[in-house]
Amino acid sequence: MENTTTRRASFKKIGMGLAALFGVGTVSAIDKKSSKGIVNPKKEVIGEIVTDQNVPLFSGAVKHGNTLYIAGKGAHVEPFEIKAHTEIVLQELQKELERNGSSMEQVLKVNVYLADLADYKGMNEIFRGRFGKNPPVRTTVATYGGVPGKSLVEMDCIAAVD
Amino acid sequence: MENTTTRRASFKKIGMGLAALFGVGTVSAIDKKSSKGIVNPKKEVIGEIVTDQNVPLFSGAVKHGNTLYIAGKGAHVEPFEIKAHTEIVLQELQKELERNGSSMEQVLKVNVYLADLADYKGMNEIFRGRFGKNPPVRTTVATYGGVPGKSLVEMDCIAAVD
Amino acid sequence: MENTTTRRASFKKIGMGLAALFGVGTVSAIDKKSSKGIVNPKKEVIGEIVTDQNVPLFSGAVKHGNTLYIAGKGAHVEPFEIKAHTEIVLQELQKELERNGSSMEQVLKVNVYLADLADYKGMNEIFRGRFGKNPPVRTTVATYGGVPGKSLVEMDCIAAVD
Repeated sequence: MENTTTRRASFKKIGMGLAALFGVGTVSAIDKKSSKGIVNPKKEVIGEIVTDQNVPLFSGAVKHGNTLYIAGKGAHVEPFEIKAHTEIVLQELQKELERNGSSMEQVLKVNVYLADLADYKGMNEIFRGRFGKNPPVRTTVATYGGVPGKSLVEMDCIAAVD
Repeated sequence: MENTTTRRASFKKIGMGLAALFGVGTVSAIDKKSSKGIVNPKKEVIGEIVTDQNVPLFSGAVKHGNTLYIAGKGAHVEPFEIKAHTEIVLQELQKELERNGSSMEQVLKVNVYLADLADYKGMNEIFRGRFGKNPPVRTTVATYGGVPGKSLVEMDCIAAVD
Repeated sequence: MENTTTRRASFKKIGMGLAALFGVGTVSAIDKKSSKGIVNPKKEVIGEIVTDQNVPLFSGAVKHGNTLYIAGKGAHVEPFEIKAHTEIVLQELQKELERNGSSMEQVLKVNVYLADLADYKGMNEIFRGRFGKNPPVRTTVATYGGVPGKSLVEMDCIAAVD
């Protein structure tokens, strides 16, 4: 159940819009105190830690027992079109999930934040089927101008992990 | 602790606004690999699966160990008034919870997305007391024009399940 | 693993904007049925219960097994400046976490709701480093005019608890 290897994901760009705001660290910490067992799972940071001026800001993935929390992912590159951005965001989610012992099929809950609700249908066209035949629950809202960086969509998720 | 019966919730309309965008499937899948035990709970899709052009889009409810995740619920019908919509959304949440072995009293966390913050007080009037005397934590934000469909309020939740 | 003492947090103001809408109760309920064990953790309301016209509205903190859910916290006081408000919100989160057997270092996931995305950088300046060297995952969106009360930022979180 526990991850026994140290994960050191490669340097990963968060996107142009955000890269201008903070750096992305390469340190990936694992709190192995969780070896105490399932009875009392400890937080494990197993994703990249994003830093702001060399100070830890947030992690890309955090594990707690059999639950994996993934940070909000955005697409901040051309073309600024919903299908392209949805594709990028889903690929970012998938990479983060697989890097940390989970998968798209094991995602439990997804939150989708659109920049514009008019992109709802276009997002769905790329989103559907991507989490297997037993998809996660989902909540979608649009936040006009509210997605950091230049992404048309941001997604985070909670997943099961073995 | 595990659900031993196959749950097949009846066909349920998600609402007029969304029904126009995608169909609602009637297949309710259960991943019974979770019988391995609590040590390593698996994701179980126990709610309706909403499809888009016959491709799975998201589920109404997903169980992971003793935690139940419920998809965002909206009200998309007349009258377009916050108290009526809050009532519909709460009833949708309750149905989804009870159909999947949980209850309003076992809800741990609720997220409320209002279309307009001016509806905060009206939403509270219907919301209060609905989750028993020991209510869940709650986070409320308004997303102007950001709730999919025509609902004035959308809510999702995470609940305990036996 | 279980909390064996009854927690009765002191009366805490939620903020001027919200205080006008509802009262804050002082009853802190604990569902000790969870003594059945980890196999089947029950919901435990261990934070303050916020009431609306003497009816339970939501709780400040709810525990489920080793997971602690914290309600959305806002700052609703002068000065209306993002760094001051971020500081207040982080202190509110910290107080709620520590009062309930957790800590900033054990936070797994944070959701940040800004009133204005222009405050993203200022929020980060106060946010960074506040959750230790292994920070939680984070999702940030801005909801123009969408944060209840007069807070420039609202945050909720999910944390590990011993």
